[in-house]
Amino acid sequence: MAIKTKDQYYDSLKDLHPTAYILGEKVENVWEHPLISHMTASVAKTFEMENDPEGRKLLVTKSDLIDEEVSRFLKFYKSPDDLLTKVRMLKFLSHNIGGCYMRCTGMDAINSVGIEAYNCDQKYGTNYWDRLLEFVTMMQKNDYVLFSGVTDVKGDRSKRPSQQTDPDMYLHVVDKNNDGIVVRGAKIHQTGSLCAHWGIVVPTREMREEDKEYAACFAFPMDTEGVIYVYGRGTLEARALQDCDLGNVEFSKYAPMILFQDVFVPWDKVFLYGNYEYAGNMVRNFGNYHRHSHGGCKCGVGDIFIGAAATAADYNGLTRVSHINNKLAEMLKITEAIYGCSIAASVESTETPSGIYIVDPVLANTSKLFEGKDLAEVIRMMIEIAGGMVADVPSDKDFQNPEIGPLLDKYLKGAEGVSTADRIRIFRLIEKLAFESRDIVSNIHGAGSPETHRMAILRNYDIEEKKKFAKKLAGIKEDE
Amino acid sequence: MAIKTKDQYYDSLKDLHPTAYILGEKVENVWEHPLISHMTASVAKTFEMENDPEGRKLLVTKSDLIDEEVSRFLKFYKSPDDLLTKVRMLKFLSHNIGGCYMRCTGMDAINSVGIEAYNCDQKYGTNYWDRLLEFVTMMQKNDYVLFSGVTDVKGDRSKRPSQQTDPDMYLHVVDKNNDGIVVRGAKIHQTGSLCAHWGIVVPTREMREEDKEYAACFAFPMDTEGVIYVYGRGTLEARALQDCDLGNVEFSKYAPMILFQDVFVPWDKVFLYGNYEYAGNMVRNFGNYHRHSHGGCKCGVGDIFIGAAATAADYNGLTRVSHINNKLAEMLKITEAIYGCSIAASVESTETPSGIYIVDPVLANTSKLFEGKDLAEVIRMMIEIAGGMVADVPSDKDFQNPEIGPLLDKYLKGAEGVSTADRIRIFRLIEKLAFESRDIVSNIHGAGSPETHRMAILRNYDIEEKKKFAKKLAGIKEDE
Amino acid sequence: MAIKTKDQYYDSLKDLHPTAYILGEKVENVWEHPLISHMTASVAKTFEMENDPEGRKLLVTKSDLIDEEVSRFLKFYKSPDDLLTKVRMLKFLSHNIGGCYMRCTGMDAINSVGIEAYNCDQKYGTNYWDRLLEFVTMMQKNDYVLFSGVTDVKGDRSKRPSQQTDPDMYLHVVDKNNDGIVVRGAKIHQTGSLCAHWGIVVPTREMREEDKEYAACFAFPMDTEGVIYVYGRGTLEARALQDCDLGNVEFSKYAPMILFQDVFVPWDKVFLYGNYEYAGNMVRNFGNYHRHSHGGCKCGVGDIFIGAAATAADYNGLTRVSHINNKLAEMLKITEAIYGCSIAASVESTETPSGIYIVDPVLANTSKLFEGKDLAEVIRMMIEIAGGMVADVPSDKDFQNPEIGPLLDKYLKGAEGVSTADRIRIFRLIEKLAFESRDIVSNIHGAGSPETHRMAILRNYDIEEKKKFAKKLAGIKEDE
Amino acid sequence: MAIKTKDQYYDSLKDLHPTAYILGEKVENVWEHPLISHMTASVAKTFEMENDPEGRKLLVTKSDLIDEEVSRFLKFYKSPDDLLTKVRMLKFLSHNIGGCYMRCTGMDAINSVGIEAYNCDQKYGTNYWDRLLEFVTMMQKNDYVLFSGVTDVKGDRSKRPSQQTDPDMYLHVVDKNNDGIVVRGAKIHQTGSLCAHWGIVVPTREMREEDKEYAACFAFPMDTEGVIYVYGRGTLEARALQDCDLGNVEFSKYAPMILFQDVFVPWDKVFLYGNYEYAGNMVRNFGNYHRHSHGGCKCGVGDIFIGAAATAADYNGLTRVSHINNKLAEMLKITEAIYGCSIAASVESTETPSGIYIVDPVLANTSKLFEGKDLAEVIRMMIEIAGGMVADVPSDKDFQNPEIGPLLDKYLKGAEGVSTADRIRIFRLIEKLAFESRDIVSNIHGAGSPETHRMAILRNYDIEEKKKFAKKLAGIKEDE
Repeated sequence: MAIKTKDQYYDSLKDLHPTAYILGEKVENVWEHPLISHMTASVAKTFEMENDPEGRKLLVTKSDLIDEEVSRFLKFYKSPDDLLTKVRMLKFLSHNIGGCYMRCTGMDAINSVGIEAYNCDQKYGTNYWDRLLEFVTMMQKNDYVLFSGVTDVKGDRSKRPSQQTDPDMYLHVVDKNNDGIVVRGAKIHQTGSLCAHWGIVVPTREMREEDKEYAACFAFPMDTEGVIYVYGRGTLEARALQDCDLGNVEFSKYAPMILFQDVFVPWDKVFLYGNYEYAGNMVRNFGNYHRHSHGGCKCGVGDIFIGAAATAADYNGLTRVSHINNKLAEMLKITEAIYGCSIAASVESTETPSGIYIVDPVLANTSKLFEGKDLAEVIRMMIEIAGGMVADVPSDKDFQNPEIGPLLDKYLKGAEGVSTADRIRIFRLIEKLAFESRDIVSNIHGAGSPETHRMAILRNYDIEEKKKFAKKLAGIKEDE
Repeated sequence: MAIKTKDQYYDSLKDLHPTAYILGEKVENVWEHPLISHMTASVAKTFEMENDPEGRKLLVTKSDLIDEEVSRFLKFYKSPDDLLTKVRMLKFLSHNIGGCYMRCTGMDAINSVGIEAYNCDQKYGTNYWDRLLEFVTMMQKNDYVLFSGVTDVKGDRSKRPSQQTDPDMYLHVVDKNNDGIVVRGAKIHQTGSLCAHWGIVVPTREMREEDKEYAACFAFPMDTEGVIYVYGRGTLEARALQDCDLGNVEFSKYAPMILFQDVFVPWDKVFLYGNYEYAGNMVRNFGNYHRHSHGGCKCGVGDIFIGAAATAADYNGLTRVSHINNKLAEMLKITEAIYGCSIAASVESTETPSGIYIVDPVLANTSKLFEGKDLAEVIRMMIEIAGGMVADVPSDKDFQNPEIGPLLDKYLKGAEGVSTADRIRIFRLIEKLAFESRDIVSNIHGAGSPETHRMAILRNYDIEEKKKFAKKLAGIKEDE
Repeated sequence: MAIKTKDQYYDSLKDLHPTAYILGEKVENVWEHPLISHMTASVAKTFEMENDPEGRKLLVTKSDLIDEEVSRFLKFYKSPDDLLTKVRMLKFLSHNIGGCYMRCTGMDAINSVGIEAYNCDQKYGTNYWDRLLEFVTMMQKNDYVLFSGVTDVKGDRSKRPSQQTDPDMYLHVVDKNNDGIVVRGAKIHQTGSLCAHWGIVVPTREMREEDKEYAACFAFPMDTEGVIYVYGRGTLEARALQDCDLGNVEFSKYAPMILFQDVFVPWDKVFLYGNYEYAGNMVRNFGNYHRHSHGGCKCGVGDIFIGAAATAADYNGLTRVSHINNKLAEMLKITEAIYGCSIAASVESTETPSGIYIVDPVLANTSKLFEGKDLAEVIRMMIEIAGGMVADVPSDKDFQNPEIGPLLDKYLKGAEGVSTADRIRIFRLIEKLAFESRDIVSNIHGAGSPETHRMAILRNYDIEEKKKFAKKLAGIKEDE
Repeated sequence: MAIKTKDQYYDSLKDLHPTAYILGEKVENVWEHPLISHMTASVAKTFEMENDPEGRKLLVTKSDLIDEEVSRFLKFYKSPDDLLTKVRMLKFLSHNIGGCYMRCTGMDAINSVGIEAYNCDQKYGTNYWDRLLEFVTMMQKNDYVLFSGVTDVKGDRSKRPSQQTDPDMYLHVVDKNNDGIVVRGAKIHQTGSLCAHWGIVVPTREMREEDKEYAACFAFPMDTEGVIYVYGRGTLEARALQDCDLGNVEFSKYAPMILFQDVFVPWDKVFLYGNYEYAGNMVRNFGNYHRHSHGGCKCGVGDIFIGAAATAADYNGLTRVSHINNKLAEMLKITEAIYGCSIAASVESTETPSGIYIVDPVLANTSKLFEGKDLAEVIRMMIEIAGGMVADVPSDKDFQNPEIGPLLDKYLKGAEGVSTADRIRIFRLIEKLAFESRDIVSNIHGAGSPETHRMAILRNYDIEEKKKFAKKLAGIKEDE
């Protein structure tokens, strides 16, 4: 049972009763809603792959907590090799899904939290680490899906949590008793959270003493009382709502906002509370891990960009055209840099006191900077190669119309030997890849924004050492 | 009457009866369809501006065909100043509309066609030029909207028109008689064509003798028998269909495909037929003019990108942050290059035998190259500045829901003094600006694709002269 | 006499007796020194061109101060057309010289100073403007070369002039009497100054009241007592010193530092002193004008990059190779943007109270940003096209050696029909174009550094207006 | 003796008697020539580091050929770890030398040749592999320096070796007998070759049957009869010739051309002859390995760029300025991508039949593409941060002049606490880093040119697999 099947995953959702709103309506069986179901399919695909001969090589691993094989999505990173395999697993899944399957958020969170839970326990005698181990053990046994809630709504960005006019702009503890804590606030961009069984909340930034009540980390069942999910709109919704012209025919993404209306959390699920000096490191760890995850998954999606563009060129009758090849090589330059820096960040990872390995932050953030800026150019080149038909081809419904369908079939034909329907399919896929706002904005802002990555790079790079090298070469004698 | 009011424009649509399909349905009063009406509003805005004191300085001009003031959209470019004013007019309109209003396509087409109609008449004694003058006179008198049909569906891109398996992949003449010609084919990406009164078809590429029947240029009333419009899908349609979360609250764009099912065109509306050696120049002229038009309109939209990003920064509480200012300056660098090269292409325009001025092709194509590649980075920076909320904020319908509306209002608040509703509005505008596929793909492929622009630049730049300069400086003596 | 010939220019240098040091030696007849003479030749070329039928169309103009034709290098910009012609003149000269000829610095300075001299007189009743007119009249009558001294050495960059530990880090007035002022300080990067007859000092930054003694602008004969020139080293000096392998066989550049050792300036040559609030505008005007000048001259040099690269490709046997054409088009994209924005900055210039026209600062600074960043990529592409032989071909002296000369001639042959000697010449030219530090650093730091240009763009762009446009489109009602 | 000391290396040069020309003169004791000696120092530094406690961890390794510790520069890559350590060793050396030390060329060559020597033996029963093992054993025992001669002069680039008018444009076998072969031709850009003991010639491209005589690979003592070295000029030579203003006070680079005037090579040093189908793979292996080497060394130099820029900022009084930090982060983004992709190319290396591991070609070439294009921008940013003084500061000789020296010392002072001399030193280092043509051109053309890297990437990337992924996601059924 430590490895669920796809069907078991679907079945397991029946026991969950989240409070969820979509486009102004409260929705009961939310996983079947057309704006949700395609991401449920993405998550389900990870379970399919856990049971696939090729997939399980990457997705399944031996637990060091229980005597079973478990999902890698629920494992601590205990070696550089664990981190390498993570990158390869995510790339592999992206090749099969063409987009987000969310489970990396939980995996990155338990590791980020673990490092600091251990550190805090060592210093303050708290017992966060044991609680976390127990929680992860339970998750592994059930092969549960875990999402992480990191990003607060933040209110006025120029102010710290405790400085906000409304104290709820960052999630915080509003009450506590012998049994646990009560939290209030809102987390936004909670990708795929409705498809998880559990969530884990991580502070979104470093905290000072005055922000103490905001330094909280805990896990909760996704349908806990007081937790409300509100769907955030994306582009291309008309397609899912009309069940046609989907582009990616099976998979998609959504990212709701989650409101915590005085939610109770028992102490055994609390992994940080009040020890504010660990909040910053938790989220910085998470950022570094999650940028590293993007290195695997977005590079895999990058392969889809390249494959789709090359297919469109074929279908247009433009195979092996010099300027297209040149563009494909430039696309590869970016996607391989994303991948390469993530691989290198794994190799150059270091062990923390908890035994968890942390990626090299300079390389992980470098990878993400390429995603944040240069991947947009990869997407633009995909559109450039595919041609203008990405913009505005008629609907499947038009093709089905007996009066104009045959005309469209005639006039939208490309290269010999390729059906018009297939040609349209590839344009639709490219449209989906290029214009799904949740994906495109995630490239830029997911796992932190480019300015954050630049700061992380500068903070972790030993520039004083490099100044010394330069001075020595220049013949400058430094004072002892 | 040579200048219509906005109301007169709306009224004039009532007399038109086009055959149009949207999402598989034949639609009667097409201009009121939610996927069409927002672009009707864009075109209507140009009429409003023709009657606006500030707007008319740019949009209204003295005709040299009739003794009246006419719309600049229907005037020949008779001086560098006409071209300068065109650029400024388009920038001005973009500031007011934030996107496409289509009328530049007809304006660029009559000028492109005019130059070659005149040249052909001079060489072959045809009378295309007089027909064109008569046509333009009629259009001016009625202040009609004219769209141009340039882009054929093209079939296999590696083959010329006459080499295609299906001869209809490029529009061509299938019959002719004393009264006129009969044409068949399809034009795609026909931006806003349903909002025009007339169309003018221009060949989409250079033609050789064997492609003679494809060398056809003519005008036709938009609702001529045999002309069928099929709506091409874009992103964000769910918003228009649900009439909420529009982003740009008034204006939008669409670009149908047009099928010509054996359409009859009388001789007096034929401006080229069979004189294949002029086809290439016609479309090259059009390309140069239209890239120049983009210089004005997309730079104006660029100002909206910058204004929207700066507003979002304010609303997030991040006014005057150093890295944001740096990005705004980089955004300006690109948009001003687009504008500056279009202004320069006007100043360096030259007179053709017809008396029409043609823009400097190197500068016009340079402007478009920045639009085709670098403007994507401007858009990315807009998203980067605005933050992740561009991706997935809840719907207006959620805000209206009494249970969650107040919570959303509370939690999505940004800087003091800014209502949550306004903050959401600016994110929605940015979403529309960044993810409206018809606009984004137009940046890349509108008025030809980047490779075309590069070829146009190389073809028109006197590189032999520059080699001579270099050789002389290097001390290389050239043979006489 | 208002237009000198080249010979008259060379003769006129005989009357000058500057104090000058090169590589530790005091040098008498400095213009003949191999590290100086090639730039003397550049300046002399401008005189040749003033007397050339084609050249004089751009370089010679009617004075509005004296009833004669004068050099455009000594004229006020009295119309957009003057500014357009300036850009074209500089491009033309660059085509003939392949680098710097310095005279634009004086031209830009008299205009920058003129605007504020006039403004100051209007407000404070000073008579700077009349003094300037008299000075310019004298310069025009003699067709003198004028350089401008703008850049101070600046000491600690984080401090204002009056805050520096050593008060001399910015040039300032140390004494004054009835006859004039005495100044001390140092100006650096004084391109070609030894080839001028006069210099004009302009403050290097905005000044506050406490910096009053630093707010000084004045003209001085280049060999005034107390003025000391110290040659600044560049790359490729071994070539000039050995008189072989020059690359650009006639022309080059140098930029000494100038020390002002208590130099006396009579009042009639003082155009600002103490009126500190005009200092900032003077240098900002200068910056805007000079970035505009770079638009003409560096775009002209850009044509040489392109011509040289294309010639090298020919000589390597690689004419019309697809990827090389692609690179040439990308090179053109940048150089034409530099040119186009300068042309546009001329067209959109505005009249100041003095009657002098000031360029559009946003467009002028945009042009310079492309030079400051993107032109480096043009140079890189030139090297990429030319191939590795740019790095390390043997010397002319090796070719002259009877033992190895014939072998080199044999082995360094490229395409048929091109002599090895010519092939080497083009590699040497490319080396000179790519590695002459004074030119390359000038691309980046000449006329201010990129950060300055970004600030100038932001300061002059009406971003509030653009926010209003965006808000209106988003449906945001602004408070009245 | 398998690890030489620095002194032993210098001593060993005394036994060599190469024929060498510099600037037209035949030079006897060439290693002491000022244009050569600084690179001799670079190579000598590698010997110093082989004997340094920290250095030997990376530079010294256990041989699997002899029972001794040997230099890593002479070892076969027998595991991914060998390749990882190579990258780290080269980065380490660049930190200490700030430029090229050449020994990687020999190391990459023996591995490239080894793979194909083995393959050829397996197929054709030749005994190239044994000869190579014997050669490498001898080299290891003596800790000799080996350079590789790859790049032929190539004549007309559009023609194959056997098509050239002059058959000597590619090195080829002109005679053979029982003892060996006789070769003629010329290799260019032979970095540091005069500082080596032996050379190994590798074919420069793939060969066809008609090019058979060009398919030759062999080793030779550097001073073999008939081998002539001709110095290729670089920039900044005046500094070395005058022994001042060096920038990098100890180290530099040169790259002569080598003429093979009918040079005899005994059979036991011939590792390929005539088996033309292995020539292409040899040089492709070399390219992939050498791009991987650049990943280590140029990233190390990149650290020097960053350290030098940051030091210059400090010395200018501009520590911790926001826009400078931003640029430093952008510089790191590029240098870390170069490094990261090389690390990843090591991790993803694969074993060949010879037991030698070959790097992942896509990642290795991606790394080099960043060096070839983006590293130029890193250098530009270094200049931008350092400021204009990189261009033209006076000479050390001026500072020594008693009249102007004290004035220069006064006026060129920057931040408090930094001597003017040190400030000038850092500008000189930056000048050397930015303007040493042999280094800059090597970034672009070393180990092949960017077009080669793009082709290598496309050739080795499985694009058909990616098309399949895309089609599946789009719902396209592929034919079985």
